Amino acid sequence: MSKEIQIYNTLTRQKEVFTPIVKNHVGMYVCGPTVYGDPHLGHARPGITFDVVFRYLKNSGYKVRYVRNITDAGHLENDADEGEDKIAKKARLEQLEPMEIVQFYTISYHKAMKDLNCLPPSIEPTVTGHIIEQIEMVKQILKNGFAYEVNGTVYLDVNKYNEKYPYGTLSGRNLEDTLEGTRALDGQSEKKSPVDFAIWIKANPEHIMRWSSPWGEGFPGWHIECSAMSKKYLGETFDIHGGGMDLVFPHHEAEIAQSNASNGCNPVNYWMHNNMITVDGKKMGKSLGNFINLEEFFNGNHEKLERAYAPMTIRFFILQAHYRSTVDFSNEALQAAEKGFTKLMNALKTLNNVSASDTSTYDVKALQEKCYTAMNDDFNTPILIAHLFDGVRIINSVKDGKESLNPSDLEQLKTIFNTFVTDILGFISYEQSSGNDLTNEVMELVLQLRGNAKKSKDFDTADLIRDELDKVGIQIKDGREGSSWEVK
Amino acid sequence: MSKEIQIYNTLTRQKEVFTPIVKNHVGMYVCGPTVYGDPHLGHARPGITFDVVFRYLKNSGYKVRYVRNITDAGHLENDADEGEDKIAKKARLEQLEPMEIVQFYTISYHKAMKDLNCLPPSIEPTVTGHIIEQIEMVKQILKNGFAYEVNGTVYLDVNKYNEKYPYGTLSGRNLEDTLEGTRALDGQSEKKSPVDFAIWIKANPEHIMRWSSPWGEGFPGWHIECSAMSKKYLGETFDIHGGGMDLVFPHHEAEIAQSNASNGCNPVNYWMHNNMITVDGKKMGKSLGNFINLEEFFNGNHEKLERAYAPMTIRFFILQAHYRSTVDFSNEALQAAEKGFTKLMNALKTLNNVSASDTSTYDVKALQEKCYTAMNDDFNTPILIAHLFDGVRIINSVKDGKESLNPSDLEQLKTIFNTFVTDILGFISYEQSSGNDLTNEVMELVLQLRGNAKKSKDFDTADLIRDELDKVGIQIKDGREGSSWEVK
Repeated sequence: MSKEIQIYNTLTRQKEVFTPIVKNHVGMYVCGPTVYGDPHLGHARPGITFDVVFRYLKNSGYKVRYVRNITDAGHLENDADEGEDKIAKKARLEQLEPMEIVQFYTISYHKAMKDLNCLPPSIEPTVTGHIIEQIEMVKQILKNGFAYEVNGTVYLDVNKYNEKYPYGTLSGRNLEDTLEGTRALDGQSEKKSPVDFAIWIKANPEHIMRWSSPWGEGFPGWHIECSAMSKKYLGETFDIHGGGMDLVFPHHEAEIAQSNASNGCNPVNYWMHNNMITVDGKKMGKSLGNFINLEEFFNGNHEKLERAYAPMTIRFFILQAHYRSTVDFSNEALQAAEKGFTKLMNALKTLNNVSASDTSTYDVKALQEKCYTAMNDDFNTPILIAHLFDGVRIINSVKDGKESLNPSDLEQLKTIFNTFVTDILGFISYEQSSGNDLTNEVMELVLQLRGNAKKSKDFDTADLIRDELDKVGIQIKDGREGSSWEVK
Repeated sequence: MSKEIQIYNTLTRQKEVFTPIVKNHVGMYVCGPTVYGDPHLGHARPGITFDVVFRYLKNSGYKVRYVRNITDAGHLENDADEGEDKIAKKARLEQLEPMEIVQFYTISYHKAMKDLNCLPPSIEPTVTGHIIEQIEMVKQILKNGFAYEVNGTVYLDVNKYNEKYPYGTLSGRNLEDTLEGTRALDGQSEKKSPVDFAIWIKANPEHIMRWSSPWGEGFPGWHIECSAMSKKYLGETFDIHGGGMDLVFPHHEAEIAQSNASNGCNPVNYWMHNNMITVDGKKMGKSLGNFINLEEFFNGNHEKLERAYAPMTIRFFILQAHYRSTVDFSNEALQAAEKGFTKLMNALKTLNNVSASDTSTYDVKALQEKCYTAMNDDFNTPILIAHLFDGVRIINSVKDGKESLNPSDLEQLKTIFNTFVTDILGFISYEQSSGNDLTNEVMELVLQLRGNAKKSKDFDTADLIRDELDKVGIQIKDGREGSSWEVK
């Protein structure tokens, strides 16, 4: 059924037919989080985007090794090899050991990914778990003549590199562009050129996260981790590398340079980048007051949020846009997504209760083809969802007796919905996604019943409700804006 | 309130007053799982035992750094530095990369620990994340003259070590005992003595998990990981080291030797060991057919199990025994535990509904003291639970009007129950432990309300209930034996 898949390759700026290196196998590497803060929309989008890519490739018959790293050391506050390590800084502020910070935020990241129904990747390597592999790569780059050491720090020599390999192929910034965008050296710098970047960094005395190396005690530069770990688990050249568009430069450009400089070959055949997210039309930022973390979306505890939005609403909203488009979050847009999602999932339920007829008035096979065509076209989930809503219309019409499906068409429609809604888009109903959501919905009914009972002065019923809820540990709170409840 | 805590120290074979190295701070290291198979009772017991120690120490006002490792490399099939790496073997059988095995079983271990309501430790270091630290320690032991290298493998020289430090202090096996228990060398061995053990092992060509080292490519011996990681996060000497009793020899004995040989000091002040678990009176073993993993307990899918047992039943059952006693699992014993747990948790709920009187007929303060005394006596949870059941009796008697508590005593009893049942023993009700259970209870109320409405011919309410439930995907089924419901 599934025809060839086309992937938009950032490297070539065009859609290309996907051909894996090893038949039926795919190696995919995606940049994961630096675990020093609460997971937010900037984590949700690549998480969900590449979860769908992972699911679709598996559904298309590939055996996929999906590697997503956890950055637990070496990521400095700015990209110019300066500033404090992000995790060490958080540890200093919280008076904890850096690895306590790593543990805490790795757990919250995993929880958020699970809430969003993202499958765990096949391997989740950490920076601290691959220091030796990174040192080996730095040694190789030095040996190949594309790096130099100054006072315990090793820099990739971009000008030297550019003599043999074209620098800037992914971002489209050549060396001159890069030089223009880089601050001039202040005379104190050890770098030969401002475009050079550190692949191993000498640890100052106060730097906690440090390892011994041939160049003294230090830690890896931020970019080298992905080069070393992707090589270890996927080989020197692998199929797909994903990440957010903000990583194209300098991070992914640096990965390409490091891999060429060390292995003598290009690391990645298909580069995929998801676009950015805005909130109420603006870039998310703590100073703008529109920085909302995922847990806040899920529980509604943020002044910008009118109420809570379930993880599945976030997932649906993100997949309603193509991954290469920007997405703007607002209460209005999320509430519309919630309605759409409910409609889709209700149709999935209805589908189990409609009966087949002798004849079909709808071309189910054509729907199936359209769905695959959408996904094969660079994982076009909004088009896929539009086709599925065509199916929703038919399901509801069949239920109302306005359209009909013969038994085999009905079965095929069920297969389409289960495959695309559940397996590929990874949607689960609000009820399935959390027992608590179902409790929420039932409790809304109970509060309504109690309100009705009070209005009609049926105090026996109102008391019964209060007492029985109390027995199971639920407390009702009456306020001016209605009643609410909580587990005691 | 809390007086001094006594801990049974395996090293001295007696209870000792616990005095931390740094006032108000505790460093605790516990041996975690080798992640190559499904989590089972042998993981649950230390997980729960040291979770309660962690909780009680925190409750006693200590700031605790709790480190529990994940063994993701270097654990060979038998203790004599022979056989295949356990994870690499599983990877070979499943045709996966070893780190895919690690990822899969780390996730299932974390899930099981969460189900059992064990708090995450402060840090969960991995072997692969600390190769350099292990190499540094091996180098130091060589430098100090307590190890020798043969063909790329480094052995700890136990005879040499024993000249300076007494070997066998923890297990009570001296060098002669150990020699007797060890197979004679076959003439092919590189070891100077059969009691020597590897701290760095040369990787054969087929060994996948390998790192470069001063002695060529290899991997750490199993024991060195805990010495290196506890030193990194807790210091050369720290307060508490925990683990299963089966680890006393050779693993913990080796840890002591490695730390002395490398740092010149004893690593641990208090060694704590939980006892073993049997199933139907026999040691758990795959060949005996009584090897039941935790997921099987939770879902009841094992021929030895009459039905499923909730994680909280397992937790309660384990804590009903002192951690230094053996525990025998059987259907009968688990069903008894389930009854006891339900009684305890029901009393906790009842406590919120009983009213205070003018006078007290019961000495609540004495109960509180008994609870602390039990926990201070080497974390004696069965005695604590017995005292809490004394409290259960009082709660039920107060409810029935046979005993009474004045307002401050009632408050204090609530504090005792919340502190010991919830915070220290880590029990949560069956409902809380799964959102679905709460839905069940609320739905029971809804069905009762609908039944009442029908009886009083209030069909508007009955219809409202049916329609609103339908909207959230719940279908009511009316049968001869009453109504039931299900998610459509």
